[in-house]
Amino acid sequence: MRKVYFDHSATTPVDKKVLEAMMPYFSDTYGNATSIHSFGLDAAKGLDIARTQMAKFLNCSETEVIFTSGATESDNLAIKGFIKAIKKQGIKNPHVITSIVEHDAVLEPFMELEAEGVEVDHVKVLPNGVVDVEDFKKKLKDNTVLVSIMHVNSEVGAVMPIREIGKTIKKHNESREREWKKLSVKERGERPQKAYFHVDATQGVNFFKQDVKWNYVDMLSMSGHKIYGPKGVGALYCQKDVPMESLQRGGHQEWNKRSGTINVTGIVGLGAAVEQLDEKTLEKDNKKIAKLRDKLVDGVLEKIPDVVLNTDRENATPAHAHFSFKGCEGEAVLMSLDIEGIAVSTGSACASGSLKASHVLIAMGIKKEIAHNSIRFSLGKHNTEEEIEYLLEKLPPIIEKIRKMNPIYNT
Amino acid sequence: MRKVYFDHSATTPVDKKVLEAMMPYFSDTYGNATSIHSFGLDAAKGLDIARTQMAKFLNCSETEVIFTSGATESDNLAIKGFIKAIKKQGIKNPHVITSIVEHDAVLEPFMELEAEGVEVDHVKVLPNGVVDVEDFKKKLKDNTVLVSIMHVNSEVGAVMPIREIGKTIKKHNESREREWKKLSVKERGERPQKAYFHVDATQGVNFFKQDVKWNYVDMLSMSGHKIYGPKGVGALYCQKDVPMESLQRGGHQEWNKRSGTINVTGIVGLGAAVEQLDEKTLEKDNKKIAKLRDKLVDGVLEKIPDVVLNTDRENATPAHAHFSFKGCEGEAVLMSLDIEGIAVSTGSACASGSLKASHVLIAMGIKKEIAHNSIRFSLGKHNTEEEIEYLLEKLPPIIEKIRKMNPIYNT
Repeated sequence: MRKVYFDHSATTPVDKKVLEAMMPYFSDTYGNATSIHSFGLDAAKGLDIARTQMAKFLNCSETEVIFTSGATESDNLAIKGFIKAIKKQGIKNPHVITSIVEHDAVLEPFMELEAEGVEVDHVKVLPNGVVDVEDFKKKLKDNTVLVSIMHVNSEVGAVMPIREIGKTIKKHNESREREWKKLSVKERGERPQKAYFHVDATQGVNFFKQDVKWNYVDMLSMSGHKIYGPKGVGALYCQKDVPMESLQRGGHQEWNKRSGTINVTGIVGLGAAVEQLDEKTLEKDNKKIAKLRDKLVDGVLEKIPDVVLNTDRENATPAHAHFSFKGCEGEAVLMSLDIEGIAVSTGSACASGSLKASHVLIAMGIKKEIAHNSIRFSLGKHNTEEEIEYLLEKLPPIIEKIRKMNPIYNT
Repeated sequence: MRKVYFDHSATTPVDKKVLEAMMPYFSDTYGNATSIHSFGLDAAKGLDIARTQMAKFLNCSETEVIFTSGATESDNLAIKGFIKAIKKQGIKNPHVITSIVEHDAVLEPFMELEAEGVEVDHVKVLPNGVVDVEDFKKKLKDNTVLVSIMHVNSEVGAVMPIREIGKTIKKHNESREREWKKLSVKERGERPQKAYFHVDATQGVNFFKQDVKWNYVDMLSMSGHKIYGPKGVGALYCQKDVPMESLQRGGHQEWNKRSGTINVTGIVGLGAAVEQLDEKTLEKDNKKIAKLRDKLVDGVLEKIPDVVLNTDRENATPAHAHFSFKGCEGEAVLMSLDIEGIAVSTGSACASGSLKASHVLIAMGIKKEIAHNSIRFSLGKHNTEEEIEYLLEKLPPIIEKIRKMNPIYNT
């Protein structure tokens, strides 16, 4: 049977070049990268190459790259490790800001912190899923220590104005510092607390350059398996002045910020994966993917009635197309497409099987009933025009059939 | 140049069969195991196979296996996740017991908890590095909630009496429950708190059957890369009644105890690695390795004067041989052997480069000066007699040369 994969936001296949880079590190250059004999040093060379690739990709220093087991760990470390560190510094009433449409790997650590007394604010989104910058500005306070906003929403593909938010935080910090310096030494209390900026870029890395300096980002989470790299590996960029306490303790690896034997093979794969995301390749791939996505969107809107496109193409990745098909449970559409060999998602793979309506769609103002009618297509660089045509042939009769069985839709 | 690897306690090469099992999951069966389309289900099949392999290996149920990024994460989760859960249950003054010779991945989480007010006791070891069971029994108290003892010490290879400790804890729990039941309903306070038993088996899995029921173990940590499996993956066995709170939050994977996209490739590799550790193979490999180790030990003791064997062969793995060469800095011996292509360790790879004397050797009553003279050989199943002979040819002149340069040794 023909197999078509339109679920690249859930995960991607490992690229041939990535796997080739990894292969020697399984059984030949297998040393522990912290061992000081030649087996260890050879493995450490692989690690160093990957670290340099990451630093170049992010425009940061090598010592600011912390390799982790994936974006979930990176998010947990960025949020809980940071708060742990600033609490240790004696900061008593920290305030943090995140958005209402973050991934659970960001929302849940904040829920944990909220239970411990940290004040958490959630920024609203506009109807297209993009974070409302005006609402964000209103929420920024003197005791704000951390802002965590995703780069791209995994469900609808909305791209957040990261640079604008980063710039706002920078100005906020600078103006507070300036005011403080104006005071006489006697009048001055403690130096004003800086607000730091964390970006969960897991879904953005595949499409956009991640220059942390250009975007005024202090911490950035990412994962290997969303960018044609391996699963089980990720990274956290952590600017050198950001307070950070390790969560996972032991052997003091990764600048004492993440203990555990270094996963050299996975890290080499992650390095090789970002190596392929140079600006020229991104531009080329994005153009190709956008063309396919537009063919898909235009075809669906033309061939199927009663459908809403929830992805605002002007403010989304080139790969996302998120629809609500009135009268069709998303899971029914997913299953029917699966029978035809086409893989899609009802939202996030993590929430699969959950009957809860997507918190992202609800935040965008979409009604619960409509939210349940959702299907996400997330395209990748290996998709073809023929695959889109195959989908456009299979999808309309599926929607028609499901609707026929739905008495409510037919009244 | 000839390359000889005697550092299997630091890490092992990935077995051919393990890599073969993993290969399809990189770029072919690459789905996200929580996706409900065929790409996801195919990946989930690989995960299920590995989970069954692990459950069979540990003699537990599939739902008691939590896949992690490695033993460090497993240890942190077992200790901090457990304490977090019992604190949530309202237990106010928990007491925990560990040993003085644990890996930092166990010692450091306990240090963290101690700073938060948890009462931590460290069991002594006998001069051969084996945990002193009598001292342990003395430390077991009514408010003991957790005992964490390693299976095998990574430095000297001492094997701990896990089953005896497990049995002691079980009897302690049963006797307290019995006493409580004898009381009239009026007299009864709260039901007595159970003490749970965690074993860091990272260094034991390669040599000994890990039957958690036979050993009365409630939690067990292990890692892929110590057993000819991949780096970046491990497991925590967590008996179903053990209170456990997730540390890494997000997508609720692994029975809601460990969030993060499931590392299918790594997990498939871990499953394939334990699959090879059946009793027959273990027996055969252990016999072969013990023979090589004895050849090494006997040769060193015969050819080199002023050397102490710190490994008690009667109470150690078949693979360990830990020596102190009087008058020789361990690092100097390591470097000189490395020049000859022979990889050894001065202790744990994690502490490499550290100038601190090993806490394990100090706990065994070895003097600091002698502790600094240490070299660990940890053999593996691919080592050969010829490699031992090569070492026995190269090592004596190295020791002699280093001693000649040491004015203190020569007075």
